[in-house]
Amino acid sequence: MDLYAQLLDCHQRISPLVHDTPVLSSSLINELVGANIVFKCENFQKGGAFKIRGALNAIQLLSPQKKSCGVVTHSSGNFAQAVALASRQLGLKNYIVMPSSASAVKIAAVNGYGGNVIECGATVLDRESTAAQISEETGATFLHPSNNLNVIIGQGTATFELLRDVPDLDACFCPVGGGGLAAGACVAADGKYRVFGSEPFEADDAYRSMQSGSIESNASTNTIADGLKTQLGDINFPIIREHLEAIIRVTEVEIIDAMKLVWTRMKLVIEPSSAVAVAAVIRESTKWRSKKVGIVISGGNVDLENLPFAIPRLKREAHKSTPLPE
Amino acid sequence: MDLYAQLLDCHQRISPLVHDTPVLSSSLINELVGANIVFKCENFQKGGAFKIRGALNAIQLLSPQKKSCGVVTHSSGNFAQAVALASRQLGLKNYIVMPSSASAVKIAAVNGYGGNVIECGATVLDRESTAAQISEETGATFLHPSNNLNVIIGQGTATFELLRDVPDLDACFCPVGGGGLAAGACVAADGKYRVFGSEPFEADDAYRSMQSGSIESNASTNTIADGLKTQLGDINFPIIREHLEAIIRVTEVEIIDAMKLVWTRMKLVIEPSSAVAVAAVIRESTKWRSKKVGIVISGGNVDLENLPFAIPRLKREAHKSTPLPE
Repeated sequence: MDLYAQLLDCHQRISPLVHDTPVLSSSLINELVGANIVFKCENFQKGGAFKIRGALNAIQLLSPQKKSCGVVTHSSGNFAQAVALASRQLGLKNYIVMPSSASAVKIAAVNGYGGNVIECGATVLDRESTAAQISEETGATFLHPSNNLNVIIGQGTATFELLRDVPDLDACFCPVGGGGLAAGACVAADGKYRVFGSEPFEADDAYRSMQSGSIESNASTNTIADGLKTQLGDINFPIIREHLEAIIRVTEVEIIDAMKLVWTRMKLVIEPSSAVAVAAVIRESTKWRSKKVGIVISGGNVDLENLPFAIPRLKREAHKSTPLPE
Repeated sequence: MDLYAQLLDCHQRISPLVHDTPVLSSSLINELVGANIVFKCENFQKGGAFKIRGALNAIQLLSPQKKSCGVVTHSSGNFAQAVALASRQLGLKNYIVMPSSASAVKIAAVNGYGGNVIECGATVLDRESTAAQISEETGATFLHPSNNLNVIIGQGTATFELLRDVPDLDACFCPVGGGGLAAGACVAADGKYRVFGSEPFEADDAYRSMQSGSIESNASTNTIADGLKTQLGDINFPIIREHLEAIIRVTEVEIIDAMKLVWTRMKLVIEPSSAVAVAAVIRESTKWRSKKVGIVISGGNVDLENLPFAIPRLKREAHKSTPLPE
């Protein structure tokens, strides 16, 4: 079965368990940007982000024996909530490894979805070894948040629904973090649509990976888009490399301004990672004048007590010194 | 023609010019509150609030001769944007009197909708005299934001659509500011539904008016719900007094918590005035257990640079000393 056929099968299986989120638009934003933009609102998805789709698909495709041992993942973000929620929906045990440095709010959110949180040290190595140990001891299957083919295909159903609802799109934009959403979008586009990724300049590992042809990492990740700090994996990179037309990079000020635009004009709470894709379309707006562009709004999980809108002018000026595009 | 018949006529006339906004719900919020709550999302309305409905109705019902002279209003809030937008849609001249102390953002928003802004002094008297002078000089018809029967009937179409979409509601809640939305909700309920108002303790003039039987005002209005600082008028008060079942008062902390709940769980930007109605349902949740309750979300116009979520704990404690209900 080819990847697109797997996606169709996945969509049918997970549909009863996820929201078929709305596609919204704003005539005011269209006027401002000069393009006809539609937003696939995965911020309205269960768990507040698209991640539940991939978690459900990966779990559904486990063998009955593997299912009986449960699943384990490590994440401090949306995938932790997604695995908690998906395993509750499907009746599996779960082990969610989170750094003890993760905010109480995030841990509480995972607990709230029925997650069995296991705290660990702060480094990536701590998380990986804790998850590996749990997997060994319990037989639980490890689920990677983005570098797992069934996760990728599950994430692709978000873009699939967007293209089903608005089949005459000229292009589709999504943010690139670990690469699951972007690779899934490529599968959903099935060679029939132009797909673009977007990244902060401050975490442009995928952009550089596309240039160099091998997976690059970030020396630093000084970006507000906390969901996009991770790097690509060996399963999603080949898909992205072959099918993604380009990755558009944006500055921190552009991200904040795009986030502000969507919050104020559309009254939608979107997370900074989603605003990266909006900022990319705005940055390239001359290329999309009078064209129809779809954006996958990846999620809406933000910390309301720590928002960037009242960012001091000096800090904004500092952000402006972020390297400009060639 | 009785008021309900006027509302039906109005709804037909204004429908092509306004959004038939969605009615949304959240299973998480329902679980938390224990009631089945539906939200009529007027934050998605043109101009970001329900106010456009009343402005359109009032303008449409002017005589051709009056239309030719345009309309004038004074407002520092959502009604200024609504009159600007409605008069642009209907091709009328407009004069929007705003205090020069109004934020540049608000004045820019009104200008953005084609508003002809005339600045005046800071007091209510300044605004009223400036508007009266313009009306005299130009023949423009003065539109009151809430104490005008055609405005009230227009605002009622929001609740009308809610009841049309969810006809089995046990009750309907809305915030009470100048009284236009609440009186309109009473007209829309047509004696067939229970309608409740909601107010901050810090601006409970309508609550006290219901008690005393005459229009009360606020000595102070120390509330975050800036849209609810105004008082009732002689046209809407009799309707409210006869048909509103009760007005539920809420504290500032309850307002902020309700606002936070809707932003984080539903990913919707709602303004503090709307959160007052949500807070009222939560405060009275034991009465509505397993019942179906509708809330009119009045709007989503907020100043993102001045949000209440990072409110210092000390200030929260101070708010807690707000008088508790009897």
